[in-house]
Amino acid sequence: MDAFMQAAIDEARQGLAEGGIPIGSVLVHRGRIIGRGHNRRVQQGSAIRHGEMDALENAGRQSAQTYRECVLYTTLSPCAMCSGAILLYGIPKVVIGENQTFLGEEALLRERGVQLEVLHNGECLQLMQAFIAAQPRLWNEDIGE
Amino acid sequence: MDAFMQAAIDEARQGLAEGGIPIGSVLVHRGRIIGRGHNRRVQQGSAIRHGEMDALENAGRQSAQTYRECVLYTTLSPCAMCSGAILLYGIPKVVIGENQTFLGEEALLRERGVQLEVLHNGECLQLMQAFIAAQPRLWNEDIGE
Repeated sequence: MDAFMQAAIDEARQGLAEGGIPIGSVLVHRGRIIGRGHNRRVQQGSAIRHGEMDALENAGRQSAQTYRECVLYTTLSPCAMCSGAILLYGIPKVVIGENQTFLGEEALLRERGVQLEVLHNGECLQLMQAFIAAQPRLWNEDIGE
Repeated sequence: MDAFMQAAIDEARQGLAEGGIPIGSVLVHRGRIIGRGHNRRVQQGSAIRHGEMDALENAGRQSAQTYRECVLYTTLSPCAMCSGAILLYGIPKVVIGENQTFLGEEALLRERGVQLEVLHNGECLQLMQAFIAAQPRLWNEDIGE
């Protein structure tokens, strides 16, 4: 398995262990992780710390040039907010664990020239299926539904 | 002047006084401010705390129903990230101070049914023009350019 997707899954599992929503992400610059994160809605009472946003935030301030050499790995298809952040910073490629439990703004990202790779990863899928079954209200809150 | 846009401008001015980027925002639910914020790139070394994101974060966790009864006020046209957050949470209306120094994803928001009102506010415009002239590199960093 891709080591970077494994790192994103490790983040998702850490979030789950904290009582949170199991979605993780890592931002990779030229083969090196420069930011890693997971959803912190529960842990920080956050409305904006989705996994991808947390990874971007933890990477700190970066130049436009750096973002343009990055790949973002995320265990779940990115929602409108996280997709917007990907577009803002011009991240050219996103590797997605699964998009079966939630299909984000993949069409918009593709339309804007972002390269997407969907892994259909069983571990990512199992994590989300179990979480959604256990906490449907929390999940709906996280996606504004 | 609209009291809520004034509150957003107050936030922008507070950000400027802190040495930051002068963009402010307030989230208004049924005529009451439930979250206020300003850009914190400089103050917190943040890549995700744009003015609108900061207001959303400071409002805390809210239900989908609450967001659907909100109006977001922002001193500047919302970028892709902030527009994505508006779409995620289904905020139906955004009041924008100005869109002359930066035109965000207004077309996308309109296409998705978000009502936009652009005030062409002189104070918002002056704040951004002066800031961009003084700190062009910082501004470019904030918009991924």
